[in-house]
Amino acid sequence: MTAQTLRTEQQQQQPPAPGVTRRRLLGTATATGAAGLVAGGTGVTAVLRDTGDESVPLTTVGATRVPFHGTHQAGITTPLQAAGHLAAFDLTPGAGRKQAAALLRRWSRTAARLTAGEPASDGDTGIALDAGPSSLTVTFGFGHTFFDRTDLTARRPAALAPLPPFSADALDARRSDGDLWVQIGADDPLVAYHALRAVLRDAGETATLRWQTRGFNRTPGATAEPRTARNLMGQVDGTNNPTPADDDFAARVFVPAAGQPDWMANGSYAVFRRIRMLLDRWETLPLERQERVIGRRKSDGAPLSGGGEHTPVDLGKFGADGALAVAGDAHVRVAAPASNGGAAMLRRPFSYDDGLRDDGAPDAGLLFIAWQADPRHGFVPVQRKLDRGDGLSRFLRHEASALWAVPGGAADGEYVGQRLLEG
Amino acid sequence: MTAQTLRTEQQQQQPPAPGVTRRRLLGTATATGAAGLVAGGTGVTAVLRDTGDESVPLTTVGATRVPFHGTHQAGITTPLQAAGHLAAFDLTPGAGRKQAAALLRRWSRTAARLTAGEPASDGDTGIALDAGPSSLTVTFGFGHTFFDRTDLTARRPAALAPLPPFSADALDARRSDGDLWVQIGADDPLVAYHALRAVLRDAGETATLRWQTRGFNRTPGATAEPRTARNLMGQVDGTNNPTPADDDFAARVFVPAAGQPDWMANGSYAVFRRIRMLLDRWETLPLERQERVIGRRKSDGAPLSGGGEHTPVDLGKFGADGALAVAGDAHVRVAAPASNGGAAMLRRPFSYDDGLRDDGAPDAGLLFIAWQADPRHGFVPVQRKLDRGDGLSRFLRHEASALWAVPGGAADGEYVGQRLLEG
Ligand code: HEM
Ligand code: HEM
Repeated sequence: MTAQTLRTEQQQQQPPAPGVTRRRLLGTATATGAAGLVAGGTGVTAVLRDTGDESVPLTTVGATRVPFHGTHQAGITTPLQAAGHLAAFDLTPGAGRKQAAALLRRWSRTAARLTAGEPASDGDTGIALDAGPSSLTVTFGFGHTFFDRTDLTARRPAALAPLPPFSADALDARRSDGDLWVQIGADDPLVAYHALRAVLRDAGETATLRWQTRGFNRTPGATAEPRTARNLMGQVDGTNNPTPADDDFAARVFVPAAGQPDWMANGSYAVFRRIRMLLDRWETLPLERQERVIGRRKSDGAPLSGGGEHTPVDLGKFGADGALAVAGDAHVRVAAPASNGGAAMLRRPFSYDDGLRDDGAPDAGLLFIAWQADPRHGFVPVQRKLDRGDGLSRFLRHEASALWAVPGGAADGEYVGQRLLEG
Repeated sequence: MTAQTLRTEQQQQQPPAPGVTRRRLLGTATATGAAGLVAGGTGVTAVLRDTGDESVPLTTVGATRVPFHGTHQAGITTPLQAAGHLAAFDLTPGAGRKQAAALLRRWSRTAARLTAGEPASDGDTGIALDAGPSSLTVTFGFGHTFFDRTDLTARRPAALAPLPPFSADALDARRSDGDLWVQIGADDPLVAYHALRAVLRDAGETATLRWQTRGFNRTPGATAEPRTARNLMGQVDGTNNPTPADDDFAARVFVPAAGQPDWMANGSYAVFRRIRMLLDRWETLPLERQERVIGRRKSDGAPLSGGGEHTPVDLGKFGADGALAVAGDAHVRVAAPASNGGAAMLRRPFSYDDGLRDDGAPDAGLLFIAWQADPRHGFVPVQRKLDRGDGLSRFLRHEASALWAVPGGAADGEYVGQRLLEG
């Protein structure tokens, strides 16, 4: 960023840059999101170049800033980013609560700097130089084992109980779980990698990388209008996510401000599943059968019960042939809140492609990340149902898994997890 | 793309869309490139949304189209794209010249469709639906072994002789070489993956994937202005590339129209090296020592002999301390044409990050791709020199290698390699 740049913070209601209408600012800020997701509690700041020249496009991709501090951590309701890294760490033998607190303090400071487009404080690799913050978010979580290692077992949330096994699980323990989790997302892959290296450097002697994986979503501007994302099976994916406009959105996704345990106030639980897609098999399926498996049209995501992408699915509807319009084992039927006692979650995934497996199959699929106030009333009942009855499961392999307690956001001057580690 | 879209082809000099000034069109089309590279023979088409509303930003990222047909193949002088795949194939036993010709015909047809933003002809996975072509390019090459398998040994170019071994090579044969090469680049990672799946499907029974790797560069718009790229060491990388403005650009990069063998007219040779960076070691080096290793400043890429990024390097200059300003083993000194009898090449890489190695080190670095009229006067002498005397080599491991004969571009109705396979 140069001296030419001017920051206009939407939440602070500052006037827009000269020559830039408020409508234009909002329009372009929204256009940076790939999906229909809109930042709820998270303000998005657009850094505009004040050139006084209408013909220069706003560089919203690089300039968009997602504040690190806030009620909730960033990276939960933030629009999907084009590049992401998931990294899990284990505390080194000997590192306990005190060292973990110092690590979270370092990580929070680094995240606050990088998400503002500034270099890391202790030396900087330079990988992100020239680029703006590019919607960077860095989100931190604690795994089940963290609490034993830090003598905090008594304060471990009941909701963090290990996920039950599912019949179709083919989990690799080395790519699952961990004491600590960092989710990095940005609209520029070098900005994301820069953050990963800074987070690794901060880990120092306190924690070692257990596993790391990277993913991607659409680049902002690749579609003419912001659209719901697609996954590597070609499906519109994310349509029936809860949205901040829903009355029960906060209750579904976040632990209440007065919730338990107290240090998880305004936090959330993230379920991670690395789900490989059997693409060679999937792609031989004719379009009509592919659509039957999901219960939605591939072209535009409209439910097979009729209407457009955002028309509610009519699970009771029968077609002219007397069969259910949305099949009995269709993914959207089995996953729907109506089939699961109201259970719902916010799915915010990345696609991944790790090349070829030894057996010649593509090592590609979905880094599935689901956010909810309590996984026992979100992911767990839904996956239990999908595990038994989902037509899509023939084309999937769940290969890694983790569950994370993601505390609320840090206030200015605080670090993430402070209420746990110093409480 | 919707009916609202209007195509304005720069090369055809059609008038720009109403309300869009020509300057604005050119300005934004250029802004899609991450580096200073400008399409030489390759026209770039911008698909503009004609909304009649000045306040809607042009979605140049998705709308930018790089034509498949032309004098040279696309993906050589095309500005760096944000996402890329490199894939090498071997012909299956039994597949010969006839099958190879049919494959190149299928691939060329698919590439022409996808780069125009259309679905693949034989079924389509839908992964790129909603997105524009996003600067997609698909580039095809032939390896040394291709010619024996197709009884075309007599027509194999002398320039395609296997690269000599270098002392620091640590090459993995399974991730090196191959009969056929496909380079895919796009500014959207799903558009790139869509092309990869279509190319794999076309391979059918004729060829099997030998190796595949993916890489990335900056997202267009992540920097306020188009800039030279950075790599994962944080260096400005690409500054002293030949540019189409140089008198000898075409002679350095492309086989002449009347060159030998005739089927390589307007073609080029691509050297691929997968170069892992020893980032954990590199990042412990103080900034000043890092800059000494390259011979340029990290902040802005300016040579240590003075000036700005684009000031010519003064290799003879001494500093106040009596030492050479650009050290004797500095990468830019050892690699410079002046040190190599004028040898030069066009470097057009992707960065890569394949997570963690078993030894805990990052499996990340550069998918180095160098383009030249003849590797015996380009990559080979330069790498020979670097291999012996480059200060940077202590931080690098060359882990895979390939050399490809990349024929000239196909005319409309032709396929790539037709003059070889039907000549
Ligand atoms: C690679 C694996 C998966 C793929 C490709 C996939 C794909 C889809 C698609 C295309 C939809 C319809 C559009 C939408 O509403 O988003 C959908 C809906 C949904 N999926 Fe998945 N899904 C996968 C795994 C899962 C898993 C593991 C869960 C949870 C355990 C899940 C839960 C849901 C839910 C709750 C809905 C919305 C259902 C509704 O209310 O209509 N999905 N998924
Ligand atoms: C990961 C490995 C490499 C890295 C990180 C790297 C980095 C750089 C950097 C930062 C520059 C200066 C800026 C520029 O002019 O682009 C440069 C220049 C150059 N590099 Fe490399 N390089 C690598 C490998 C190679 C290899 C394998 C070759 C060829 C065998 C090569 C040939 C060149 C040439 C010809 C120049 C321009 C020199 C001049 O004329 O000033 N590089 N490289």
